[in-house]
Amino acid sequence: MSSTTDPAANLATLIRCPSVTPNEGGALAALETMLEPLGFSVERPVFAEDGTPDIENLYARRSGNGPHLLFAGHTDVVPVGDESAWSHPPFSADIAGGEMFGRGAVDMKGGIACFVAALARYIAEKGDPEGSVSLLITGDEEGAAINGTVKLLEWAAACGEQWDAAIVGEPTNPDRLGDMVKIGRRGSLSGAITVHGRQGHVAYPHLADNPVRGLLTLADALLNPIFDEGSADFQPTNLEITSFDVGNPASNVIPAKATAVFNIRFNDNWSAETLQAEIHNRLDTASGRRKYRTGRKERIDYDLVWRDRPSHVFLTRDAALVDTLGASVKAVIGREPALSTSGGTSDARFIKDYCPVVEFGLVGKTMHMVDERVALADLETLTQIYLRFIGDWFAKGRN
Amino acid sequence: MSSTTDPAANLATLIRCPSVTPNEGGALAALETMLEPLGFSVERPVFAEDGTPDIENLYARRSGNGPHLLFAGHTDVVPVGDESAWSHPPFSADIAGGEMFGRGAVDMKGGIACFVAALARYIAEKGDPEGSVSLLITGDEEGAAINGTVKLLEWAAACGEQWDAAIVGEPTNPDRLGDMVKIGRRGSLSGAITVHGRQGHVAYPHLADNPVRGLLTLADALLNPIFDEGSADFQPTNLEITSFDVGNPASNVIPAKATAVFNIRFNDNWSAETLQAEIHNRLDTASGRRKYRTGRKERIDYDLVWRDRPSHVFLTRDAALVDTLGASVKAVIGREPALSTSGGTSDARFIKDYCPVVEFGLVGKTMHMVDERVALADLETLTQIYLRFIGDWFAKGRN
Repeated sequence: MSSTTDPAANLATLIRCPSVTPNEGGALAALETMLEPLGFSVERPVFAEDGTPDIENLYARRSGNGPHLLFAGHTDVVPVGDESAWSHPPFSADIAGGEMFGRGAVDMKGGIACFVAALARYIAEKGDPEGSVSLLITGDEEGAAINGTVKLLEWAAACGEQWDAAIVGEPTNPDRLGDMVKIGRRGSLSGAITVHGRQGHVAYPHLADNPVRGLLTLADALLNPIFDEGSADFQPTNLEITSFDVGNPASNVIPAKATAVFNIRFNDNWSAETLQAEIHNRLDTASGRRKYRTGRKERIDYDLVWRDRPSHVFLTRDAALVDTLGASVKAVIGREPALSTSGGTSDARFIKDYCPVVEFGLVGKTMHMVDERVALADLETLTQIYLRFIGDWFAKGRN
Repeated sequence: MSSTTDPAANLATLIRCPSVTPNEGGALAALETMLEPLGFSVERPVFAEDGTPDIENLYARRSGNGPHLLFAGHTDVVPVGDESAWSHPPFSADIAGGEMFGRGAVDMKGGIACFVAALARYIAEKGDPEGSVSLLITGDEEGAAINGTVKLLEWAAACGEQWDAAIVGEPTNPDRLGDMVKIGRRGSLSGAITVHGRQGHVAYPHLADNPVRGLLTLADALLNPIFDEGSADFQPTNLEITSFDVGNPASNVIPAKATAVFNIRFNDNWSAETLQAEIHNRLDTASGRRKYRTGRKERIDYDLVWRDRPSHVFLTRDAALVDTLGASVKAVIGREPALSTSGGTSDARFIKDYCPVVEFGLVGKTMHMVDERVALADLETLTQIYLRFIGDWFAKGRN
């Protein structure tokens, strides 16, 4: 029998693998070593695409007679930042004051370590689960995310894999373990607007057309009015202008063009398509009603380029999954978790096209920061919650 | 007797000196060679300042018994740009179709060449002028302009020089020689506004404070309302936002700061000081009435840095200078020139602190462009206008 029932030991092994995206760093190999003695068959597909680094991934399955539970996550971590600022080396897994230090401690090697420990305990205590369990682990979540979860899901589905429910082990709790289960996410849409003007000397504005004036007008149309006040299950839709750039070093020259980049996080009042139509409508209307005195042009000459793929909004209502996880949390810590759709996107947005998905893991407070760390007590508690969930979810499948 | 009575010959000599700022390129030496036989004592002060190239300048004086006329200009030229796009090499002074080609042909070696020719003709025809004539020529007008006209004026004044009137030989005519004399200029004021926000993830806007929203609000306050509708002698005051920069490559991150640079060309409704006060007032008011929904801050946290020295507005009403030049133009070409204050700043803004100053030179159409060139006929006409002016201005001084 392996010793993978201890989440802290599992996590220490994983933290000591310096798996900063796109490097595998030994982390998937270590995970494979943990899973094989537990009866998993492990595959390590590598995905590649021109202009992006090749990425190693892992898919592990333990087949059983019953429904199929998927655990999803990633072993890659963000860079350590200023290494000298860490209290303990970022790949040391040092323990101090009841906490384990290291990059990935909560985001999200810790979640993987707990899920593996929960499985090991389940098998040790109760034998085979009454169904199949799989782990879908990418090495490309913190990076470009091109050769990761999306391709891994497509690859597994092409191999005939089907899942009945998925849990993503991201750190969903803002402050205390058990506070929050994520049952959906807003969508995300990004675009860039470039206004084309006419370069000239500031002393002769009538011979030029300052694109900054046009872009200010369009930016105003993006921000006003607000899109909605939120919905029953979601926060308000929100647009942020994340960059606005001209790059003109000469203060006596009117520039030729100006570009603004924006991102919208949108709720279920919108689809990506209806929101794109709204943006086009706002810009088309505003481009004809120039707000500022300008040079010669009548309409604002602009183009809009949508960036990246939109992330679609989703909400998981599957009771077998949501209620069982909520009950598992309550059984272990005595409190109901909030069922939330707040925050950013995650790989759950890809998984939701295959099966119901929720997210639950450690406390995210130190993620991406110097001195990322996890309380050993949290590792134990999360392991117990996952263990309880595995038992109850399969039991529900049996009924 | 020298042959400097021919402006085209003078100009060809000057064009063949590749005096792209900050290089003297032989141009001031060539000018010295022209002026000494005409009875000028020539000095070539070099000015230096940390962080800027040393610059050669020229001050030539021909003393006489009567008022003191100053001619000011520069021999440095802007870079040639795409040399392969020129019809004739930019330092060749080739003549084709009645035009002389070369960088500096109109801006403003041509003006210098004509003034020297006019002086040579005056002296040849009439002998000594009834007063003093000086040339104040810098090699730093097209560059940083730090080691040029300002220091040359201070240096000359410190040597006891005083002038009664000045003419700057910049190309003031938009289309045809004789169209326009500049008798004043708007002022110029530049500043940079930086709004300080709080960086964060776009999915958590309540934890961040997007400085772009703040800067959009302040930009709006800069542009609205307009400053004035113009004055009796000047075009309207106009503000242009020449750059607006965030430089944030991540569309999922709310940036920490945003900066806008602006330039104002202002008329005699304002001084640099009253306009700075107006800008401070607009920004202070707007920073307290945030236009867009934002994060946590109540007021927009910004700073404003004024850039460069302001250029002060000026208007020359000296009749002996303005009327004599206007009459000289009319006598030679048969048309009254427009007396204008339009366009950008020039070194006249520095000279106006020492004596009345106007600007009159060639046609500016090709300045700073590929194939900069001047009609030989224009060189002869400008020489005749300068010659007439020299005679009439000293005659007026005698009365």
